[in-house]
This record gives sequence, C-alpha cells and structure tokens, in this order.
Amino acid sequence: MNAVVLLSGGLDSCVAATIAKREYGELSALTFSYGQSHEREIKSAKNVAGHLKIREHKVISIDSSIFSKSSLVGKPTLIPQRELEEIKEKEIPLTYVPARNIIFLSYALAYAENSDADAVFIGANAIDYSGYPDCRPEFIEAFQKVADVGTKKGVEGKSVKIKAPLIHMTKAEIIKKGMEIKAPFHLTWSCYRGGEKACGRCDSCLLRLKGFQEAGFKDPVEYESYPSWYNPLQR
Amino acid sequence: MNAVVLLSGGLDSCVAATIAKREYGELSALTFSYGQSHEREIKSAKNVAGHLKIREHKVISIDSSIFSKSSLVGKPTLIPQRELEEIKEKEIPLTYVPARNIIFLSYALAYAENSDADAVFIGANAIDYSGYPDCRPEFIEAFQKVADVGTKKGVEGKSVKIKAPLIHMTKAEIIKKGMEIKAPFHLTWSCYRGGEKACGRCDSCLLRLKGFQEAGFKDPVEYESYPSWYNPLQR
Repeated sequence: MNAVVLLSGGLDSCVAATIAKREYGELSALTFSYGQSHEREIKSAKNVAGHLKIREHKVISIDSSIFSKSSLVGKPTLIPQRELEEIKEKEIPLTYVPARNIIFLSYALAYAENSDADAVFIGANAIDYSGYPDCRPEFIEAFQKVADVGTKKGVEGKSVKIKAPLIHMTKAEIIKKGMEIKAPFHLTWSCYRGGEKACGRCDSCLLRLKGFQEAGFKDPVEYESYPSWYNPLQR
Repeated sequence: MNAVVLLSGGLDSCVAATIAKREYGELSALTFSYGQSHEREIKSAKNVAGHLKIREHKVISIDSSIFSKSSLVGKPTLIPQRELEEIKEKEIPLTYVPARNIIFLSYALAYAENSDADAVFIGANAIDYSGYPDCRPEFIEAFQKVADVGTKKGVEGKSVKIKAPLIHMTKAEIIKKGMEIKAPFHLTWSCYRGGEKACGRCDSCLLRLKGFQEAGFKDPVEYESYPSWYNPLQR
C-alpha cells in the first residue's frame, strides 16, 4: 500500500504524513511553491519528508498570479496581524487563497494515478480557522466524488481515497496525536513570516502556540517572543 | 457577466469559447502548457483568443512529470496511430492524461474567484472519445459540487457555474454549431503532431475530418493528406 501526502512544511501536514506513514508504509509527497513570502516552509517540508523516509518528494511550482488577490501570496505587508481573540470563527479569513486545496488535491490525484497510489492525505482541519471553505468535510466528500467519477482508477473501481484524518480535530488534539505518534514537530514551520525564528505574534504562530498550551506540551520550535499566556516551561 | 474559458487550441474549446462569448460577453482564457509535443496548440489558442477579443489570456505551465505516464505527454513516438474504426468506444484511450481536466478546472476556478467571473467553460464532450472519465457529465456535476462547497463564492451563494455546453454533442454536431455561430475553426489545431500542416492520419485528425464530413463542411485547416473517405470539395 502506498499513499501521496500533501506536505506544506507546517504542523498539520506533518501529523497527517506521520499518520499516513503508519497506515500505508510507503509514501510520496508533494509540496507547492506559489510565491509565498516564506520559502522557509519548503525547506521544512523537505526536512519532514527526509525524517519520514519518503520515497519521492516533488516540489511543484504554481504560477502565483492565479491566486493573486490573497494576502498569503506575494506582499508580506498585507498579512493580518490580529490578536487571536479577534478571529471570528465563521468568517472567511483574509488569508484564504482561492481554490488552493482544490488545485493541490488535483495534482495529488494525478500523481496518485501515475504512481498507482491508494490514497491521498491532506492535513486540512475544519475546527480552528473553520472559515476556509476548502478545509471542510463537505469539500473533502465532494472531491472524493470527483476522484470516483473523474479518473481512470475511479472508473475501474480502485478509486484513490481522499483522506483528511485531522478534519474534525482541534489544534490541541492534532498536537496530542502528533506527540503520541512521534511526528517531527521540531522540523515544521507555521509562521507567516520567513525569519530565522518564528515570530510568535502572527495569527499562525498564535494558533499554534495556543494549541501546544492547551495540549500541555512545549513547542520545540524556536520563537522570537511568546505571548504572555504561553508557558514555555511545560514538558 | 464574465466567464473564464479553457482554451486548448483545438476545435472543441474554440466552439465552447465562441458560445461563452455570445452568452457572457466578457471572457478571460487559460491555456496549459504541459510538455505536449505540439506547442503548435498554444499558438492556435492565442490566435483564437485574439479573434474572440478575449480580455486576458494566461498560458500556464504545468510540471509535466505529474502526468508522465500518458502518451500525449513527452515522447511523440508513443502516439497511437490506429484506424478510426478500431477505436473502442468504451475503452479509456492511451492518450488519457491522469486528472488533467480536474487540474485545468481547478486553476480555472481559482482564476474565476480572483476575477469574480460567473462561469467556467470547458469544451469537454462525452460522445466521441467517451473513454475519458473526466469528459463525462457525471464528472462535470461532481466538479460543480466542489465549486459549490469548496470556494468562497460557492459558500456565499454565488457559485461559479461549470459549463460544458458540448458535453452531449457528437463531433459533427459541434462542427455544425460552430459554423452557425462563426467559430474561428481556421485558427484551430487538432493534430497530435506538431508539423506545418495537420497530418490527416492520427486519431485526432481522423476524428475531426470525420466530423466535418458528417456535418457536410470542408475543414478550413490544411492537411498533408486526407483519408480516402473524406471529400474536400464540399462547402
């Protein structure tokens, strides 16, 4: 059995890949480069792939003009720097990138067909940051249907399974799960900025640190600064 | 109203784009370059876009290694050169490229969201060459659902419509429709080879000429040779 994993370099895809490794044994991975301000993520994805002994890791460039209105692509000055408590759960965040996971899953599906893989793993989760439409269970189900009817493997009854094992988990649950199965968190990168250390102030750092705080673990990644509510002295 | 069209440079997408122009007025277009042996198609797509006064035409490069097992990608020696009568209707052709239309529609959806377009047009048709899983109505329906639940516009009730106006037409019907609405057939390219003139012998040339023959029109494109059953003297 073998699977394709979407590796972003972040925490969620690291846990999803570690789960895939345990369930499927042999893994390939895809990472996308689409003009993010933080190429640092790609380096982290490579490190995670190396740690998990992934057979083939492809880094695919995507013409970023296709995504050009999102604040995650291109200009770093547009990154929202709101406090965590201000994030409105039901609002689509400014960092939403149109159809991003749809494009990523499409490539993964093509690659899975070519390499005769049984499944595609994506680290999407709907709980924290639930505003992304393409991180919800109904999206994963709809994409499964596309794989079922729109590919040769699907038509032949050997459909590639679209697996989003974190979809119903909170960030703290994802971190607990990752600690349990020894996901290489120390190699991951979540910060929206691309510095030496994670900033500890952007939405993504705050969400991650809140998750570690709630899970009761210390984040092994280095930070420039911590928010006042975070206790870096826990196990 | 504005729409995004997938333009391949071929006959079907030319008719789909001409229909889109009449229905939506303002068009943008995407063409994909993925290591086909016939870059000639891209030139034809540009010519069709120019003829239809398309506002923006993006040519997007796709890492062709993602598709690498298909005979349409890379090595021209692998192109099947069977006679038309040998094409088995229910078999998936050797020229099937894994998840190709899924990737193309995903990009078009991203672009439609960014440019606030109302629809995406694809020239897929299920009748001739019905073996492609991603050219069937059930695939288009499944992808519509992805657009409905997986994008911001979808969640906000302004879903991008996935339009495949040729899906139930035969090649002859597509050609009749195109002649009726003055689709610029003279600018299109269907041949699997990238020569000066179309070869008149590959599957794609034979299917096209058969369509013109059945529709009762002369194909305005120049050919190296014609099959014996084709009458180039019709109107």
